[in-house]
Parts: sequence; structure tokens; C-alpha cells
Amino acid sequence: MRAVDLIRKKRDSGEHSREEIDFLVSRYTRGDIPDYQMAAWLMAVFVRGLNRSELAALTEAMLHSGQVLNHSEIPGKKVDKHSTGGVGDKTSLILAPIVAAGGLTVPMISGRGLGHTGGTLDKLESIPGFNVNLSLEEFRRVLRECGMGLIGQTAEIAPADKKIYALRDATSTVENIGLICASIMSKKLAEGIDALVLDVKTGSGAFMKREEDSILLAEIMVETGKRMGKRMVALITDMSQPLGRMAGHANEIIECIEVLSGGGPADLRDLSLDLSAWMFFLGGRTKTVDEGRRLAETMIATGQAKEKFKQCIALQGGDENIVDDPRRLAKARFHLNVPSPARGFIIDTNCMQFGIALAMLGGGREKKEDQIDHAVGLEFHKRIGDPVEKGEPLATIHYNSDARLAEAQSLISGSYVIDETAPGEKRPLIRRVLGA
Amino acid sequence: MRAVDLIRKKRDSGEHSREEIDFLVSRYTRGDIPDYQMAAWLMAVFVRGLNRSELAALTEAMLHSGQVLNHSEIPGKKVDKHSTGGVGDKTSLILAPIVAAGGLTVPMISGRGLGHTGGTLDKLESIPGFNVNLSLEEFRRVLRECGMGLIGQTAEIAPADKKIYALRDATSTVENIGLICASIMSKKLAEGIDALVLDVKTGSGAFMKREEDSILLAEIMVETGKRMGKRMVALITDMSQPLGRMAGHANEIIECIEVLSGGGPADLRDLSLDLSAWMFFLGGRTKTVDEGRRLAETMIATGQAKEKFKQCIALQGGDENIVDDPRRLAKARFHLNVPSPARGFIIDTNCMQFGIALAMLGGGREKKEDQIDHAVGLEFHKRIGDPVEKGEPLATIHYNSDARLAEAQSLISGSYVIDETAPGEKRPLIRRVLGA
Repeated sequence: MRAVDLIRKKRDSGEHSREEIDFLVSRYTRGDIPDYQMAAWLMAVFVRGLNRSELAALTEAMLHSGQVLNHSEIPGKKVDKHSTGGVGDKTSLILAPIVAAGGLTVPMISGRGLGHTGGTLDKLESIPGFNVNLSLEEFRRVLRECGMGLIGQTAEIAPADKKIYALRDATSTVENIGLICASIMSKKLAEGIDALVLDVKTGSGAFMKREEDSILLAEIMVETGKRMGKRMVALITDMSQPLGRMAGHANEIIECIEVLSGGGPADLRDLSLDLSAWMFFLGGRTKTVDEGRRLAETMIATGQAKEKFKQCIALQGGDENIVDDPRRLAKARFHLNVPSPARGFIIDTNCMQFGIALAMLGGGREKKEDQIDHAVGLEFHKRIGDPVEKGEPLATIHYNSDARLAEAQSLISGSYVIDETAPGEKRPLIRRVLGA
Repeated sequence: MRAVDLIRKKRDSGEHSREEIDFLVSRYTRGDIPDYQMAAWLMAVFVRGLNRSELAALTEAMLHSGQVLNHSEIPGKKVDKHSTGGVGDKTSLILAPIVAAGGLTVPMISGRGLGHTGGTLDKLESIPGFNVNLSLEEFRRVLRECGMGLIGQTAEIAPADKKIYALRDATSTVENIGLICASIMSKKLAEGIDALVLDVKTGSGAFMKREEDSILLAEIMVETGKRMGKRMVALITDMSQPLGRMAGHANEIIECIEVLSGGGPADLRDLSLDLSAWMFFLGGRTKTVDEGRRLAETMIATGQAKEKFKQCIALQGGDENIVDDPRRLAKARFHLNVPSPARGFIIDTNCMQFGIALAMLGGGREKKEDQIDHAVGLEFHKRIGDPVEKGEPLATIHYNSDARLAEAQSLISGSYVIDETAPGEKRPLIRRVLGA
């Protein structure tokens, strides 16, 4: 078997066998196939596509390129959630404590933010001392002790994905549903979980702007997971405006603590509870999703979820006192309101622009190498459907440097679509549930 | 400008500006763009295509990646011919002496054989002492002294093409008309010529099997050359059977000497004279193509072309006595006839297979690194339309090693299509003339 023949096959719209895909992935991972051949193959895949069985083979080959964790020494089911990412999307830090407090194990391997989206690892690092770089041994110890753990991808987990993803990033072969699915699923299935809840975002702040693309990605991921014996569900959720009122790293930790304390914005609380409910249900902890939802509410009401979060922070080396005293987190020195340019109703937002403005101010990464200022953030005062007066603050910028402040302010201001008449129907936060 | 954005643009069927193509080619040639980004771009180009102005820009960028020869110190027009390659295609070694003897200059930079096709450089190297690796300075001296010269691509000529071609070979992005055109034309235009005659082969022994593909490639090459101020013509010629009676290196040199001596097989003589005629006409040596044909015939009849060939061989360090005494060339030790499996008429051949059988016996390269046995060859006794008796020799194999003899013999035998009734019409050798 030769890589050059497999490239030709896919170039000419041929279908790969499982052996062919195993050959490409394993040889590439150990360096026997050079980057330039993989790049040509990835572009051919991007244009010609992968069918369902090729996709399953690719996911499994990437999964088995490294270690697949086995937590069988920890009793009970292991469940996780994966979100395709958006602005203000911080549910992981709320649902992991809820679900761990409710008796399941949540072995969460997360990523970093790039471009307009935030990353769970970056948010956690705004907690003083929090260490996301645990060894797999330390990770297991944390999981055993508190039922949840939050780390980054290690060298042992799906090394093929790590190498292929870096190549895709440099060769414009990222935005392909098959390749996205294989990348996500190979990492998530390596966590050694029994069930996975997918939060597939759709709208102007999501990678998939069109709902039909989000649905297709969700279907493919659900099918791929089920083929491999996992219980799966996908929620297609709205990302046409930020989730919650806060974006930025320390700001989002504060908002998570608010929800874990029984408060917080309704949309964030609702989605976190619904995702937790599905995790309880798929993990066999409750007989129905509704029962799962009630269990999640109880975990918040009794303070158990909040305690679980503190326990996890402490076990991972962080300052757990931030939960009771969020003022211990980094704070921006300056605040600036973004006034509404007109009177009327917010009828839509160009949500991705908020993420871009945040990164521009230092609260995100424009390039992989960028350092993040955890104190920088955005506070959103208006949601779609809200009335607004001319000059009334739409959002508040929390910043430390005014180098690109004017640019960010105008980007934020221009991202709100304001009309004289209120929008007709309310957009549901959860658009659709697939695969249940 | 970033390579990753240009890859995305072509991936999404966008059109490149001249500046974008210059950026890609110049940065890649000097190593600032890595192979893997170029590979992804080439695959995107393979699938999405290049329009005429992108193609002209690519050809020019590759041409100007190196030195463009200038022979202005040599009086008169400089002309060349390029063939897309086939089996037994040896016209270069006949027409270059004819045209140089007729008063034009032929600065010919040729290639080596790979796969089923032979290469002019390899054929020349069957002449003892012949040096195809002249420096550009030595090349100019030979051109000045005898009006023709035959060398290989040097490091100074179109280095972008050399680097891109090697990458295309490894990434299955060879068989694309736009990329083929840019590769050929960038090298040929670097020769510093005023006019170029293209011999675009079509049929089972050509790279382009279908006549419409050959025509498209010819049209694109003619247009690209004309845009750059060159006089151009393309002859679409038949390659559904070998050209002449001989294939193999020393064997083909012998057949060229036969034609230069006024004999030789009719098809090879006719095509060589017609290509020479077009070179005389486009080079302004004659007022019509017919007049060019008569001049070419005269150059053979008077022995001037043959003398020119001897002069060139001597100037390039070769043994010019082989022209008068071809027995000085390498000879195979053994001969084997390939008998006809049936009685009837030859109605077609799978011509590419002859070239593959020849390489199998050592008379060609299966891989780039292979050494060629110049004595190995094939002699064809039958042409399409000829009657044949069962057991009568179709071809004779000239060989030195019988390691793969049986395999080659059966490949050759199976490449003749024999039927009880004679084929209706005769296939014209020159199918079409384009761009005149």
C-alpha cells in the first residue's frame, strides 16, 4: 500500500477501506508518511468527502493512535459533554460539578480557545493555582476522589488528532464536517466514557452558522459514537447571541459560581440544567430526562454542586476560596460602556464579532502563541427581543489596555441589529434534540 | 498575504490574482512556504482548476523562478519542438539536425523517460561519450558553432517547476491539464526561443488517451505561448501504436540515422518532416509550411542534416562515427520473436503496454533511480491494418536478461488486437493542427 495511491483514490472520489485509513493514520502519526502527502489527502477529503463507514474508520484509527483511558477501577458510569463552542459558552464548569455531585464520574478533557471562541482550560487558569496539566495518573486520582477532573489533551490521548489538527489549521482543511467529527470524537472517546452529550451550537456565534450544517454534524457524531457502543445525544442550541451575560475568563468563572449558587442568568442556568439532565439520564443515574433535571436542580439547591466545584479546584491545586469570594479573581482596571446608537429593539446580533472584539482586547487568542489577560471581559446588558433607548449601554467592556479599545467598541456596537419593531417570535435556546 | 488564505480561496473555487500566484511560486521556490501547504494548494488546483489568466500567471511565475536564456548574440530565429511523449517517439533527434542545417537555431532542453515513455536525454546517452550535462556556457558555445544543442534541465532553468513537479509526483497531482501546461511551457519558454511547435500525442500510448483532452491541452499551451509573444502551433498526432519500427535507446538512434540517411519507416519520416516544416515556417525561414517541408526534404537528400547530427554529437563529446557505422552502438545479446496468437488483421494496439514491457526488460525506468540498458529494445513488424498469420512474428524483443522475459512477451502479445476483418478507415497520423 502506498500513500500516493490512496491520495489518488480519494482525489478521484473513491471509497477507502478500513485498512487504507488505518495505514494512512498510523503511518502519518509515526512519521512514515510526510506532512505533504497527508496535506494532499486532507484536501482531497475536504473536497470529495468521507462516507459514514470511512468516517467511523477514521475516528477509530485516530482514537487508537494513542491511549484509550480505562476508569474501570472507579465504580459507576462515566459521562461527558462536548460543545462545538461559541461566545460565553461556559456550561462545562457548571454541569461537571452538578453531575459529579449527583453520583456520576465526569472525566473531562478540554481544549483552549482560538479565534472567537473561549476554551475551558483558559477559563480554569484564571483561578489562581489551578493546574490543567495533570498527568494521567494524577487525573485518575482526582477523578477517584471527587468524581470530576478537568485537564487538557495529553501526548498520550489521540496523538494522530493532535498532529492532523495542526496540519489542517495550516492547510485550510478545518471546516469539514467529517474531519471535525473525527477530531472531536476520537478525543472524547479516548476519555473512557460510557455516554456523551453533545451541545452543537448554531447561529452567528457558532462555527456552523446554518442550522442544517449543525444538524448534519450532530447526526454524524451521534452515529459515530453509537457505532462504538456509546450512549449519545445531541442538543442543537442557539448561538445567535452570547450565552449568559458574561464573556471573558475571570468574568465567566464568576457567572458559573452565580449559577452554582442558585442565581445567574436564565439562559445559562437552563441550558446547564438540561445538559446535566441528559448526562444523568444517559449515565443511567435517572430513569427519565425530567428526573435528571430535578436531580440537577437539587444539586444546586442543596449547595452540593458548589461544594463539588470547590473540592475539584482544591484537588487540582487551585484557590477554592474564589468560590465564596470571587473578588479574589483578576479584575480589569477600567470599564467602558458601549452606548446604543439608536432607540428600538434588539432583533439580532453578529455574535462572532463579540468574541473577536474580546480577543482584540487581550481576552482571547488571535494566534496560538498569544497570552490571555484573564481579567479582560465583556458584560452584555441586552438580549435579543429587549427594548433599548438611544445612548443606553448595550454592553460594558472590562479592559486593562486601550490600545485597540476604539476598534473593539465599534465592533461591539456594530454587532447589534436594532429595529423599530420588536422581533415576532422568541428564539428557543434548544432548537432540537437528536439521537435520543 | 498568507499561504493558508490562498489555499482556502482555491479550495472554495476562488480566482487568484497574478500577485497571489507570484507569491505562492516565489515563496515556495525559496523555501518560505512549506511542502505541505503547496501540496494542499496543488490538490485544490487539481480539483477546482485554473482559468486561463491564472494559468498564464502560473506559467510566467515558474518561468521567472530561474534564468530565461538569451541567445541574442546568435543571429537568426531560435525554434524548438516539444512532444508530450509516447512509445518510439524519436522525432527530436531527426528534426533538430534538419532545422539547424536549414539555418535556424534549435536550443533543445529535454527530459528523461519515466514509466512507459522514453526520454531524449536517455536516447542520446546510448551514443558513447555524448554529454547531456553541459553548463549553460558550454551549451551556448555548441549552439553558436552548429545551430543545435541537446541538454537536460539545469538548476538555473525554472527551479520552481523542478520543485513543484517532484511534489506533484508524490501527491497524485500530476494529471491535470493546467499544471501540465505550466510545467511544460515554463521550461520551454526558458530556452529563449521565438517559436515552438507542439506535438501533442493522443491515444493508447499517450498520457492523454482521449483526443478531446489532447486538444484541450494543446489549445491551452498554444494560448499560453502566444500570450507571451511566441509563435506557436500544435499538431495532435496519433499514438495508438508505436511511432516507427523501433523502441529502445540504441535501436531508436539507429532508426533516426536511417531517416536522416533518406530511408526509415514512412510514419516516422513523415512526422519528422512535417514538424520540421512547421519549425521552418514559424521561425520565418520559409514563407509557407509546404516550402518548409520541401526545405526539410532537401536537408535530408543533400546529406546536410546527417552531417549536422554528426557535428553536434562531436561537439557534445560523443562518438560521431556511430552515424556512419551504427554497429558501434550497444547491441543486445539475445533476440526473441513474439508470435501472433491468431490469423487476421491488426485492428488496434494497447500501445502503453509496449513501453511498460520495454521498461520491464531494463530498457526504461520503472522508478526514477533505475539504470537503463541502452541495448534493450523492441522491433515492431506489424502496424494497424496489416494482415497477420497465426505464429508470424508481431515483434522481436532485443534483450540481455531473461529475468522478466516471459512477462514482457505476454504483455506485448496481449497488446495487439487482432480481428478477422480489416479495420475500415486508416488512422491519419496527424489528426489536427491547432493555433496556426
